[in-house]
Amino acid sequence: MLKYQQIATELEKYIEDNALQQGDKLPVLEALMAQFEVSKSTITKSLDLLEKKGVVFQVRGSGIFVRRHKRKGYISLLSNQGFKKDLEDYHVTSKVIELDVRNPTIEAADNLNIGLEDEVYYVKRVRYINGQTLCFEESYYNKSIITYLNKEIVSESIFNYIRDGLGLKVGFSDVFLHVDKLNEEEAEYLELEAGAPKLNVETIFHLSNGQPFDFSKVTYNYEQSQFFIQANSNFL
Amino acid sequence: MLKYQQIATELEKYIEDNALQQGDKLPVLEALMAQFEVSKSTITKSLDLLEKKGVVFQVRGSGIFVRRHKRKGYISLLSNQGFKKDLEDYHVTSKVIELDVRNPTIEAADNLNIGLEDEVYYVKRVRYINGQTLCFEESYYNKSIITYLNKEIVSESIFNYIRDGLGLKVGFSDVFLHVDKLNEEEAEYLELEAGAPKLNVETIFHLSNGQPFDFSKVTYNYEQSQFFIQANSNFL
Repeated sequence: MLKYQQIATELEKYIEDNALQQGDKLPVLEALMAQFEVSKSTITKSLDLLEKKGVVFQVRGSGIFVRRHKRKGYISLLSNQGFKKDLEDYHVTSKVIELDVRNPTIEAADNLNIGLEDEVYYVKRVRYINGQTLCFEESYYNKSIITYLNKEIVSESIFNYIRDGLGLKVGFSDVFLHVDKLNEEEAEYLELEAGAPKLNVETIFHLSNGQPFDFSKVTYNYEQSQFFIQANSNFL
Repeated sequence: MLKYQQIATELEKYIEDNALQQGDKLPVLEALMAQFEVSKSTITKSLDLLEKKGVVFQVRGSGIFVRRHKRKGYISLLSNQGFKKDLEDYHVTSKVIELDVRNPTIEAADNLNIGLEDEVYYVKRVRYINGQTLCFEESYYNKSIITYLNKEIVSESIFNYIRDGLGLKVGFSDVFLHVDKLNEEEAEYLELEAGAPKLNVETIFHLSNGQPFDFSKVTYNYEQSQFFIQANSNFL
């Protein structure tokens, strides 16, 4: 982790520890430089990163302010740090249904940019929140990139393992959403009636060099899940 | 619009005009500087902006590459440029059901950070895609910021008017999603059965100074809508 990333993490902790609310003003640059004992360029880079992440917003000539929505229990659609951070007041667990090496489906091959004769790790999991079903997940990992997975890894955070265990750099992702009715299989795993509403989220995760390494399809239990995104003006 | 923003727009057009695909490499910095007749710092700022918007990704020591997902007909969840850009091959229209000045609901007042005795413009619209219902929308605009609206403005792009007509600077937004079943009113406007699945999207739009000016609640026809987000590694 680079210096400015460390400082950004500490600044986030500072906001949390001091229970700062939306619109609260952060100390001026000079004070932050003194507090964290870093240069102006480092603190500026840290604040830019936090702005991109939706943690603060900067008003020219006026200062740096905290961004923090009021709603609890929402899952971030743009984070792959797992549910832990969003749902820290809840108890989230996973049950691995299947884990094996196989050839990809046509859909997975297309989204991973690989051939039908290539190999993927296929992972099927159900995740639970406070003992209720949260989501049903099927993921396809390109085995030439994610060279090894086992049941223990798959029960915990796969992305922590990819970063720390395999040393890979995760880059951007494309996320596709649609709402539909649960089919029989999904309903069974989610312990709901077939035909009930569902949110389906398909994500293609890429390494920072642009290579897609994971295609995942997640179906959420609509009664147990709600989502948020903090968007910044770059998209507007 | 600043110079680097102009160049970013031109670069996006260049990618489109040349039908560049995901993974295609852009010309090197020097070539782009010559092509657009700008300095290195300007072209770098343009490329950073395009990276934030999910149009390109940069690989250190290797170059700048095009990001472009393959799926057509998806609506961007992080854009408020209206549906025009995402659904340009489709015919999208609006019908204004109600437009008036009133006091906010408790929910709207809470999300807009105003009092119950303050005034809002209330807008109720149905939007159509190729003659089918796309979504049902209720919006509350803080009248002390959005000082004037009329039926003509509300039938077109309200955000273009806010920027160009009122000269306001739109900043960040908080987006909340959940899936549920359509109630009677929503079903009627969307011409679907009550109880059918829906995606509900609530957005709080802020000016760049952090002031919330619009709280909107949109219910989508699940048969006519699908969504995408291009996320970058800042969120990971």
